[in-house]
Amino acid sequence: MRRIVIIGFESAGLTAASAARLTDRAAKITVIERRIYAIYHPCGLPFAISGDVPHIRHLVEPAPRMPGVDVRICTEAKVIDVGAKVVEIQERKTQRSERIRYDSLILATGSLAFRPPTPGAELGNVHTLRTMRDGEEILAALPRVNRAVVVGAGPVGIEVAVALKERGLGVTLVELMPSVLPGMLDPDMSDAVIERLGHAGVRTLCGKRVERIEGVEKVESVILEGEKVPADLVILATGVKPDIGLAKDAGIELGVTGAIKVDDHLRTSAPDVYAAGDCAEATCFLTKRPILSQLATTAIRMGKVAGINAAGGDEVFPGVLNTIVSSAYSMEIASTGLTTHSAKEVGIEPVAARIRTLNRPYYYPGAEPIIVKLLIEPSKRKIIGGQIIGDGAAERANMLAFAIKYGTTVDELARIEYCHAPPVSDCIEPLIVAAEAVLRKL
Amino acid sequence: MRRIVIIGFESAGLTAASAARLTDRAAKITVIERRIYAIYHPCGLPFAISGDVPHIRHLVEPAPRMPGVDVRICTEAKVIDVGAKVVEIQERKTQRSERIRYDSLILATGSLAFRPPTPGAELGNVHTLRTMRDGEEILAALPRVNRAVVVGAGPVGIEVAVALKERGLGVTLVELMPSVLPGMLDPDMSDAVIERLGHAGVRTLCGKRVERIEGVEKVESVILEGEKVPADLVILATGVKPDIGLAKDAGIELGVTGAIKVDDHLRTSAPDVYAAGDCAEATCFLTKRPILSQLATTAIRMGKVAGINAAGGDEVFPGVLNTIVSSAYSMEIASTGLTTHSAKEVGIEPVAARIRTLNRPYYYPGAEPIIVKLLIEPSKRKIIGGQIIGDGAAERANMLAFAIKYGTTVDELARIEYCHAPPVSDCIEPLIVAAEAVLRKL
Repeated sequence: MRRIVIIGFESAGLTAASAARLTDRAAKITVIERRIYAIYHPCGLPFAISGDVPHIRHLVEPAPRMPGVDVRICTEAKVIDVGAKVVEIQERKTQRSERIRYDSLILATGSLAFRPPTPGAELGNVHTLRTMRDGEEILAALPRVNRAVVVGAGPVGIEVAVALKERGLGVTLVELMPSVLPGMLDPDMSDAVIERLGHAGVRTLCGKRVERIEGVEKVESVILEGEKVPADLVILATGVKPDIGLAKDAGIELGVTGAIKVDDHLRTSAPDVYAAGDCAEATCFLTKRPILSQLATTAIRMGKVAGINAAGGDEVFPGVLNTIVSSAYSMEIASTGLTTHSAKEVGIEPVAARIRTLNRPYYYPGAEPIIVKLLIEPSKRKIIGGQIIGDGAAERANMLAFAIKYGTTVDELARIEYCHAPPVSDCIEPLIVAAEAVLRKL
Repeated sequence: MRRIVIIGFESAGLTAASAARLTDRAAKITVIERRIYAIYHPCGLPFAISGDVPHIRHLVEPAPRMPGVDVRICTEAKVIDVGAKVVEIQERKTQRSERIRYDSLILATGSLAFRPPTPGAELGNVHTLRTMRDGEEILAALPRVNRAVVVGAGPVGIEVAVALKERGLGVTLVELMPSVLPGMLDPDMSDAVIERLGHAGVRTLCGKRVERIEGVEKVESVILEGEKVPADLVILATGVKPDIGLAKDAGIELGVTGAIKVDDHLRTSAPDVYAAGDCAEATCFLTKRPILSQLATTAIRMGKVAGINAAGGDEVFPGVLNTIVSSAYSMEIASTGLTTHSAKEVGIEPVAARIRTLNRPYYYPGAEPIIVKLLIEPSKRKIIGGQIIGDGAAERANMLAFAIKYGTTVDELARIEYCHAPPVSDCIEPLIVAAEAVLRKL
C-alpha cells in the first residue's frame, strides 16, 4: 500500500489529495496542515474586508470527506528526512511528535506574505493580507481608522483598495512601477483601471517608492519620495514569497526564483518528493523559463499533476501563462500570456493592437465598453498575450490562453466562430475585432 | 476595375461589402437593398417588443460610410442573367429600371419568416417576427391584447414569450417537439429553461401541435391537440426560410436544404456568383453535411468569405457549429456543435455528462448555478458539442466551438488553464468540471 504524505492543505494540497485518491484508490494519504482549520480561501479576503462576503468566517470550511485521506490539522511538519523518507510532525496543541513514512511526498506549503524591508513596517496597523488572521486584524481595526494607504497595485492591492473605499475610508494606492497591475496589463490598458478607481475616489500614485512608514506605535503617515501621506492603516499588498523553509532544510534544491525547483512532472531534486502551488517554481509555457505563478488556479493545476504522479500516474505539467482575473467596482480585468514588457524581456518585439468595443449592441441600453489588447509575435503571427477589461474578460482570457497553447495565429483568431444575442454580446466578438486590428498592422 | 454587385444588406451583405472593399481597394461595389432603410437588426426585435430597447426605430441605422460602395436602398433586384452577368434592378419609388453588369455577384438575400400552413394563420393579430413591420405591428397591437400564444420555442420564440410576459400579457408557449430550444439543447438541459419560464408565469406546452387558429377576423383561440387556448395575439416563431426566389429564377442550383448550394468558397453553380447568409446552405463543420444555419453570426462569417472571394481573394468557409446564445430573464443559454439528437442522426452515440456548479465561490453572495452538458465522441474522445446555461454561457460556447474546430479531446479540455477571482468565477472552471465528469464515464 502506497503511503502518500502531503504537506499543506490550500489549493495545491487539497487538489493533490483528491487527484492522488482517484489515481490510487488503495493509497494511504496523509495531509499535514499547521492551521487550526482545514481549508480557507485567501482569494476571498479582500471581499470579506469590503463586506461583499458578509462574514470572514465564511471563507473557512472543513475538509471535504475523502475516504482514505487522513487530514491532520493543527499539525506541523518539522523535519523532512529525504533519505529515510520520513516526515517528523508535531501536533501543535499536544506538542506530541510523530515520524511518518512516505513513499511519495508532496510539498504544498504555499507562500507567506512578503513584508518589504521598509522602515516602520513593524508599526501597529500596518498589515499584510494573506492569512485569516491578517483579515481579522484589518476588520478589527476598521472602526478606528479613516485613512488607508495600500502599498502595491497588483490584483490584491487593487481589490483591497476598493474594499477599504467601500468601507468609507480615504484610500491612497501606491505602486512602485509606472502603472497599476504591471504584471497583467500594459500601461495603456491600466489607465482604464486607474480612471475607474479615480471615479470612486481612490487616489492612485504610480512610480512611487515608499521610503518609510512613520508613527508612534501605530502608523501615522507613509513617506513617499517627495510626499507625506497621512494614514492610520497601511496594507502591504506587496506579494508573497514561497514558503520553502522545510524544503531548504531538507536539502531540496531551489530554483532561480527562490521557489522549489521542479521538473515537468513536478518532481523535486529529492527522490519521490513533489512540489506544487505557491512554494514551487512554475514554467512559463511560452518562454519555458522558470517563473513564480502563485495563483490559486495554478496551484490547483499543479496539485492535480503532483497528486497523480505521487500516486503512480504519469502526468506532465505543461507550464502556465499566468491567466488571471481581478475586479474593481464590477469592472472585470483579465490577462494571459506575455505583456509588452515581459515579451521584450525575452527578446520578442510584439505587434499589438488595442481596441474598444461594446459588450452589447449599440442599440441595447446599458451597453458598456470592452477593451481588448492582443499581442502577437510577428514572425510566427502567433498570439502571445491578451489583456481584456470588461464583461466576460475572464472567459476571453481563458479562450486566449487556450489559443496560445494551441499555437493559434492571429489569422485563425480572426476567423473563430462565436455567438450573439443582444442582451448578451455584440454582433462581432471583441477578440475578432482585436485580431483584425492586429492584422492591419502586420 | 472589378464590378461587384451584392444583393441584400443585412449581416451577410454588409460584411461582404466591407470585406470586398478591403480586399480590392479599386473595385466598384454596388449593394442592392429592397428595404427603405439601409440596415436593421432583426435579432433586436424581441427586445424592442419587451421594451428593453426603448424604441423599435433604434434597430434601424443608416449605411456605414464605405468609400466606393454604392448602397442603393429601396431598390429591388428583379432578374439575374448569369450568362450575360447582368442584374436588372428597379427603384421602388420611381419604378425606374436599370441593368447593371457585374464581374462578381453576391447573393445575400437573407430569409423570410416561415408561416406554417396552419388553418387560421391568416387571421388578424397572428404575426411572424422577422421584419421591422412585423415588430411594429405587434407593438401596435399590444395595448389591445391580453393573452398571447407563441408558436415555436426556438430562441426567437423564447425571447418573444419573455417579451410579451414582460409587457403584462398572459403567455402560452407551444412547441411541437418534446422540449424547448430543441435545436440547441438536449431535453435534460431545456428543463431548466422551462422552469425559469414557469417561474415568471409563462406556460410552456411541449410536444403539442397547433391544429388550427380560430377567430372571426381576429384570432380568438389556438386549438392544440385536446386543448383550446384563448388568445388575442399569436406569434408564429416557426423559423425562417431562405429567400431564394431570384436565385431559382436565374437557374442557380439549390441544395437539399432548399437554400442556395455553395462550395467551400461560397461559390454557387453560376460562374462568379457567390451566396452568403440565410439564403445560402452552410456545412456542418463536424458532419460535413449541408445544413441551414441562419444565424447572424454565420451570415457575418459567410459574408466575409464571399466578399473576399468575390473581390479576387481566396478564402475558405470551414463550416459552422451553429454556436448560438439566447436569453430568458437574464438566464444565458448557449450551445455549440451537435446535440444528442443530432449526433445520433449522423450515427454517433455520444458520451455526455451534465454538471451543475456555481458562477462564483459558494461563499460569495449571489452565486448562481451554471449548468454545462458536454458531448464527446467516445472512440476519438473528441468534443462534439456543448450546452451551457448560466453566466458566461456565450463565451464558454465560443470556447467549445474553438475546441471542436481544433479537435480537442476531453482529456485536453480537463487540463485547460483558466482564471479565478471571487466576484467573477468559481475556483474551478465549469468546463473542466464537465470534462472530468465525462472522463469518469469513459
